[in-house]
Amino acid sequence: MTRYLVISSDGHAGPPPEVYRDYLAADFRQAFDRHQEELTAGRMVNTEFVEEWDAETGDHDMRAGYDPSARDRILDQEGVAAEVLFPDADVLGTGRLASSPFGSGLGSGQDVDPAALKEGARAHNRWLSDFCRTNPDRRIGVAVVPLTAGVEDAVGEVHAAAALGLRGVMIPTRWFDSPAYLDPMYDPFWNACAETGMVLHTHSGAGPADYGLGPGMVPIYAAEAWWWAARPFWVLVLSGVFERHPRLRYSIAENGAWWVPDLVRRMDEKWLGGHNTRKFGEVFKEDLTMRPSEYVDRNCFFAASTPGVDEIERRHAIGVGNLLWGNDLPHPEGTYPHTRKWIKERFKDVPEPEARQILGQNAAGLYRLDEGTLGVIAARIGPTVEEVHGP
Amino acid sequence: MTRYLVISSDGHAGPPPEVYRDYLAADFRQAFDRHQEELTAGRMVNTEFVEEWDAETGDHDMRAGYDPSARDRILDQEGVAAEVLFPDADVLGTGRLASSPFGSGLGSGQDVDPAALKEGARAHNRWLSDFCRTNPDRRIGVAVVPLTAGVEDAVGEVHAAAALGLRGVMIPTRWFDSPAYLDPMYDPFWNACAETGMVLHTHSGAGPADYGLGPGMVPIYAAEAWWWAARPFWVLVLSGVFERHPRLRYSIAENGAWWVPDLVRRMDEKWLGGHNTRKFGEVFKEDLTMRPSEYVDRNCFFAASTPGVDEIERRHAIGVGNLLWGNDLPHPEGTYPHTRKWIKERFKDVPEPEARQILGQNAAGLYRLDEGTLGVIAARIGPTVEEVHGP
Repeated sequence: MTRYLVISSDGHAGPPPEVYRDYLAADFRQAFDRHQEELTAGRMVNTEFVEEWDAETGDHDMRAGYDPSARDRILDQEGVAAEVLFPDADVLGTGRLASSPFGSGLGSGQDVDPAALKEGARAHNRWLSDFCRTNPDRRIGVAVVPLTAGVEDAVGEVHAAAALGLRGVMIPTRWFDSPAYLDPMYDPFWNACAETGMVLHTHSGAGPADYGLGPGMVPIYAAEAWWWAARPFWVLVLSGVFERHPRLRYSIAENGAWWVPDLVRRMDEKWLGGHNTRKFGEVFKEDLTMRPSEYVDRNCFFAASTPGVDEIERRHAIGVGNLLWGNDLPHPEGTYPHTRKWIKERFKDVPEPEARQILGQNAAGLYRLDEGTLGVIAARIGPTVEEVHGP
Repeated sequence: MTRYLVISSDGHAGPPPEVYRDYLAADFRQAFDRHQEELTAGRMVNTEFVEEWDAETGDHDMRAGYDPSARDRILDQEGVAAEVLFPDADVLGTGRLASSPFGSGLGSGQDVDPAALKEGARAHNRWLSDFCRTNPDRRIGVAVVPLTAGVEDAVGEVHAAAALGLRGVMIPTRWFDSPAYLDPMYDPFWNACAETGMVLHTHSGAGPADYGLGPGMVPIYAAEAWWWAARPFWVLVLSGVFERHPRLRYSIAENGAWWVPDLVRRMDEKWLGGHNTRKFGEVFKEDLTMRPSEYVDRNCFFAASTPGVDEIERRHAIGVGNLLWGNDLPHPEGTYPHTRKWIKERFKDVPEPEARQILGQNAAGLYRLDEGTLGVIAARIGPTVEEVHGP
């Protein structure tokens, strides 16, 4: 095969508010309009960036987020055969909204009426299912599930999402004032994901909540966001969720993976019984029969869109079979509309078999995709080996 | 000089409760007794570890924490000329207490009566001052200052501590429900530290507070503790505290430094204006006229006791002039009673000039110590160059 099968493990889809409105139960629409007004009032607009972005993409209406033919055209142009779809296609900085209703998207879990939050999530999931059906081979939908608003409903939503043809669920990255994910009360949910084969996801977005306005606020948010987004990872590993649910598979989206080797090595050292922790006795082995890194290798995936130089350099320590490429379409921190150039830049010197794993095969395995069907698409639009590794 | 001048940038000192009691104002003693009872009831005791530790040190009474001659004997034995002294000499796991009163030590900042907290801190500082006077050349005392319980009192305590002969202040590592350290309300305090030359410190200890009991609780605490302890570092840098107070010097104690290069590089990338943050505009430069790494280099020190293999390997990326060795005496996660062996293990292959910086010169500069006086002590008890680098 002279072309790469490229699967983006991190894309975003969502329609404008007026479309979402129709997917909501009628008695939630008034509250939705109010919530949208608040969002609109609170949005940051960087006019200089808006002009630059519009000129670059030509997409003033954010059709990339919800229009099937616009999306397919972009996928072809970018060389992407298929993609995993999260919510919140809004382009931050432009003031344009396409957010999963009632904050049920990337920042989910904060103080919102639980009934509205759940209805918002269901509305997004129904819309997403319809969107995925417009091209089911190329769209892998991830349902949003407000787990912290109620475990029983969340279990129901896993089954509903599976019935809708979606392939995974995204839970709130932060638990805020709800019980933390180490609490065994969540076990029925982990079990439902494992049994249905729905891939569990968290996605970066919800940052620190314990400081107010002040100098450095945005830079501090930016410096910390990776940690908050990574936190469920070691909470799930160390509390034995993958010990109790060995078939559960978990992908951490848009959060790099440069931090993985240092953190996992330290988790292993403590489990093995290092000098620094001997005063704690055997507590590190109470809930885990294997080393932490063994659960990571078996159950965890890093959808590190867009991989940086560090992720590529550290790929063996991270796990070549656990690292997933993505382009974060249509977000401007992703590689759209220059994905082919970025793929070349990062993968030029990566041996072809490893590049094939990271760019597509790992995702195909995780989401149990048909590589034959996707191969036909890739043979038409995928980046060629020459294009990636050539001069 | 054939011997190394070794200064520990991380030691702990504190007497048993009955001694602390005498340093407290009379009307706080009853509350102190109650608080101690609660502490005693809540302490973890690992009997197997107690036996092992007592056999190893021969110090059943924790005299290392407060007895001047016992301490000096240990310093000589370990090859340490001088040391920086933090509170809480208790040995966790043995159930033995020597905690700065009313939780004013390493875990300070949590929900405690502010009046008691401040009195507890003052009692510790008075005791510490007396302890340091028993051998002022070798003991560098760090006052505890409950900054989050009131800025004005904290400013007063900086001056009081300086008058007591102490060389630095330690503030709560976490702000919990108080305003975060980016808040300009703290400026008078940073200013007081900068003007008096008192070195600012945070020290690891206070971990996550947003989850309850559950599987993996201790391993998760252990996996996260470094981050909570490191957090004031980027909050101070990115909110411009070192921009506004260029003479303020800050040491982060007992928290490794393996994490420094990755985090600082990302802070710089955002300041320089990377692809990922262009949507935010110029916000990263609003409070900083220099790159974050320049403030780090000028104002920040990593008292990374006990350095691991990673800290030594990454010392150039961390800053050879910013890395400080320590032995965490008398805590069992430190190197006591085998410090000489550990120094050899870590520094064997480090060029002598760099080892001299990390083992002692950097601390001498930071605390403005007299290297002549300390050199005389080092010439008697310091590890020899042959001992460290020989076969």
